[in-house]
Amino acid sequence: MTDTIPDRLAALRQAMRRHGADAVIVPSSDPHLSEYLPPCWKGREWLSGFSGSVGTFIATQDFAGVWTDGRYWTQAESELAGTGIALMKISSGASTQYVDWLAETMQPGQVVAVDGAVLGLAIARLLLGALQAKGVELRTDLDVPGEVWSDRPGLPTEPVYEHEAPFASTSRADKLAALHAAMREHGADRHLISTLDDIAWLFNLRGSDVNFNPIFVSHALVGLDHATLFVAEGKVKPSLAAKLAADGITVAPYARAAAALAELPPGTVLLLDPRRITHGTRQAVPGHVKVVEAINPTTFAKSRKTEAEAAHVRATMEQDGAALCEFFSWLEGALARRHEEPLNEVDIDRHITAARARRPGFVSPSFGTIAGYQSNGAIMHYRATEVNRAVIEGDGLLLIDSGGQYIGGTTDITRVVPVGEITAEHRRDFTLVLKGMMGLSATRFPRGTKAPMLDAIARAPIWAAGIDFGHGTGHGVGFFLNVHEGPHAITPSMMPEPHTAMEPGMITSIEPGIYRPGKWGIRIENLVMNRADGTTEFGEFLRFETLTLCPIDTRCIDRALLREDEIAWLNDYHATVRERLAPLVAGDALDWLNERTKAI
Amino acid sequence: MTDTIPDRLAALRQAMRRHGADAVIVPSSDPHLSEYLPPCWKGREWLSGFSGSVGTFIATQDFAGVWTDGRYWTQAESELAGTGIALMKISSGASTQYVDWLAETMQPGQVVAVDGAVLGLAIARLLLGALQAKGVELRTDLDVPGEVWSDRPGLPTEPVYEHEAPFASTSRADKLAALHAAMREHGADRHLISTLDDIAWLFNLRGSDVNFNPIFVSHALVGLDHATLFVAEGKVKPSLAAKLAADGITVAPYARAAAALAELPPGTVLLLDPRRITHGTRQAVPGHVKVVEAINPTTFAKSRKTEAEAAHVRATMEQDGAALCEFFSWLEGALARRHEEPLNEVDIDRHITAARARRPGFVSPSFGTIAGYQSNGAIMHYRATEVNRAVIEGDGLLLIDSGGQYIGGTTDITRVVPVGEITAEHRRDFTLVLKGMMGLSATRFPRGTKAPMLDAIARAPIWAAGIDFGHGTGHGVGFFLNVHEGPHAITPSMMPEPHTAMEPGMITSIEPGIYRPGKWGIRIENLVMNRADGTTEFGEFLRFETLTLCPIDTRCIDRALLREDEIAWLNDYHATVRERLAPLVAGDALDWLNERTKAI
Repeated sequence: MTDTIPDRLAALRQAMRRHGADAVIVPSSDPHLSEYLPPCWKGREWLSGFSGSVGTFIATQDFAGVWTDGRYWTQAESELAGTGIALMKISSGASTQYVDWLAETMQPGQVVAVDGAVLGLAIARLLLGALQAKGVELRTDLDVPGEVWSDRPGLPTEPVYEHEAPFASTSRADKLAALHAAMREHGADRHLISTLDDIAWLFNLRGSDVNFNPIFVSHALVGLDHATLFVAEGKVKPSLAAKLAADGITVAPYARAAAALAELPPGTVLLLDPRRITHGTRQAVPGHVKVVEAINPTTFAKSRKTEAEAAHVRATMEQDGAALCEFFSWLEGALARRHEEPLNEVDIDRHITAARARRPGFVSPSFGTIAGYQSNGAIMHYRATEVNRAVIEGDGLLLIDSGGQYIGGTTDITRVVPVGEITAEHRRDFTLVLKGMMGLSATRFPRGTKAPMLDAIARAPIWAAGIDFGHGTGHGVGFFLNVHEGPHAITPSMMPEPHTAMEPGMITSIEPGIYRPGKWGIRIENLVMNRADGTTEFGEFLRFETLTLCPIDTRCIDRALLREDEIAWLNDYHATVRERLAPLVAGDALDWLNERTKAI
Repeated sequence: MTDTIPDRLAALRQAMRRHGADAVIVPSSDPHLSEYLPPCWKGREWLSGFSGSVGTFIATQDFAGVWTDGRYWTQAESELAGTGIALMKISSGASTQYVDWLAETMQPGQVVAVDGAVLGLAIARLLLGALQAKGVELRTDLDVPGEVWSDRPGLPTEPVYEHEAPFASTSRADKLAALHAAMREHGADRHLISTLDDIAWLFNLRGSDVNFNPIFVSHALVGLDHATLFVAEGKVKPSLAAKLAADGITVAPYARAAAALAELPPGTVLLLDPRRITHGTRQAVPGHVKVVEAINPTTFAKSRKTEAEAAHVRATMEQDGAALCEFFSWLEGALARRHEEPLNEVDIDRHITAARARRPGFVSPSFGTIAGYQSNGAIMHYRATEVNRAVIEGDGLLLIDSGGQYIGGTTDITRVVPVGEITAEHRRDFTLVLKGMMGLSATRFPRGTKAPMLDAIARAPIWAAGIDFGHGTGHGVGFFLNVHEGPHAITPSMMPEPHTAMEPGMITSIEPGIYRPGKWGIRIENLVMNRADGTTEFGEFLRFETLTLCPIDTRCIDRALLREDEIAWLNDYHATVRERLAPLVAGDALDWLNERTKAI
């Protein structure tokens, strides 16, 4: 019986004894190092009961714990209560801290097991180094939890579909040709891709295997004149398989990927991205294959949106903005009626998704809506649920972070609206965040500037008030793909290495914030795109084109804290928002748009 | 005969054949990885004739070249002309590019020789990896150039002297106790220090072995109850040796350092900083010693100036500022008379050093004065010499970057003055640089912010005009020690790793610039110190206290480009400069101070 967490732990420990494993690690990852896991790889949740999206489970015969950061402590404490599993608190960015714990705790000669198939190569190298130094053996050929997971779900079965022209503006053939050129530059004749957004982008395919990201579970092995897509049988219909075949792409069973690597002939030069494959995949490569390590060329290519993609994103932002006008005009009415008809955070999630769903090209939300009222807005990854949601009552600030997947682009926006009477402190915090957002939005910078180096520009006005925020200023965003995509991010937690260089066409969020635990949270988020902004004797320069079109609530602003250039930026932005959204809305939504885009 | 460069190359190649070395590398470094080399380690200059401070020489039987970056190309081209030695141009920050060249050029089985005693451990690891992958052997036990260097100078013989109280505000015993505590935290019972500023700081000693940095050639081996200072015989007088002995410090011959490492008993745990020792030193450690790698604790400790040191630096800045008032008031007179009495860049160097030398506590310049008129100001490491110097004629901008070593601190300042009539473009560039300098100077930031992350704040106003500058915004500065000291620097070329965190008491330069090749160069540089600026619910914050006291020439400002807060910053700064320097100057210098600190 494995109905309860203690049952499951007992079964796991029995299997560990059978294999001679003194400790088992269950990371929250899959063979594709995805942000959102299909159910069949949610082994850590099954074993521990902790359902947060980031956390590492470790069990020995007399200890079990989950390592997770501050965003998840409250949730983990409640979900782990009574299981005997310890919550191991780590600071954000310290996701490998369990490695130190293992190195300190395990004794020479002991064995640690982890399923190499879901362990990132970079972390595997770290783990191996730390354990070998202690004389501890790391076994990566065992899936111990998999042996006891009685009701483990199967692979997702949703169909793969084509992302078609005009939205997919570059053909598969052209994308493959560019990839072949990059492979040749590395002297490689084969390239294995495991990251699902890279594969979806390369082949102009999409799927529905996880929430929010329109990807499908697969690997791709690309040669210079032929490619193989490894995907579960039945997901690619014969008609689509025929179209892929015309571009030199064969569909093969998902489970065949490792065997295909093992069969690579001597003399093969294989390009692998050590940050984007697992240890198991690396182990499947025979010794007679020469491996060249470099970042996936597709990761660079897909981050640089084409002019055609940029045009689709602009049109998508207009539709998304129009949906938001309808939503916010409804919300203001609902807030006015809140004493008669109670309104809660889940209502907000429902209405904002419904407004988007009425727009052409909408596919799904791009992540779980965060609607956090007052103190809930200060919880960074807050998600209201039917059983755990605040009713919007009293006065305060309501933070709404939401986004949509459309066939013409991916959106992600955060706005904060006042409820009832707000205070001078609310306005001061809001205005400081706005200053940070506008300051970075207006920055011109040399092409090739490392994205992390721009982070301080958004923070400076917030720092000036003795305030800071515990997340990055911005993340890359895909084109009808992952709402978090690399290779760049505007964050101090990423090293400014060469692959983080800013290039034309990259989309990034700019989303500084202020979070006062127990009180309120403020974040203002727009998406921006890097645009060429002239070449001088000092080189090429870029500027940010603001893509997101939605009013920023001026009722929350303390105008005295803004400089003239900041006021001009905001008024210009609102004039643009009004001009581009007005044709797409009518009635109350249009009235709301006109009211909320008035110059200050 | 080794009178000419070709003679020297021929002798080197003969010695290479004798040892079976197919290539020889001569880096520009010494056993202490110093910025300025004593003459006995200037082997690269002796062999190639290239006298720039940074460059790597490589010879094979049929090739010889010097790898250096853009700052030195003009100089290298002229110095290498006719020698048959190639100038290998590299971009700045690419100092290890010769490693790639060797990996591409050398054949399997060939032997590359380099003197491990002067090769940094980090670069040695890179070199070993690259050559081993090609099947090329790296020999680090040969000093091939040393064998043919007939007239090689000996070790510097200048005496070591004590940096005394009150200027040395922390006793040797207290510094050693703090170091012992740090060693214990690492589990180490021995620590070898090779970096000369770390040794000088730890023992409150100074020397005159190289230009500009008041250090002396030595190693230190520190135990938990005893330390040994390895220094050339005769440099430490008996009376000083007796004082050191009282603090548990034995003086031993310089050449004994490697032997002392070799004699370390089994069970020793030795703390070494891989960025601050050479390959040769690492090789001298026997296998039975356990090595713990970490940054030198003294590097952190000396970067955080005490309150007493801060007070000395403030007093020193007043003396330095007073010297600058005298110099600049003379300079303005000399510029007015320049049509009758020609003035050149070397005159400026001489007068500024003489003005400082009249001030109490002055020891030496802290680096070679850069006085660059018009296009010479655009050459980043320009140094006027008697044979190569511009006469100050016509109209334009004169850049003066200079500094002093005083027993109470180290100074480093850059100012730009107008000569004759200057243009609107001069003023625009000057004002943009000033905006960058003031913007960062006024920034408040969380304690622990990685210094490199602050760089963009100084650049943003310069970037906005489509301009950038090719050096870091700021470097750490010692206390009567090296004018360039770590562990922090405000520069995009340094990775924002943990050791770059900003802590109270650190001194840094803020020195953005604009350089228009062939036209003019502008840089405005102040030194600033990190000061505690309150603790909020978001943590501890720091601000910069501007240490440098000297007017910024307001005749070069385009006031219309400044915001009100910037004008207020500048006027406040000038009021402070006037108030603190006026008591120390008289006559023309005081008149000049009053005139040049007027509010704008």
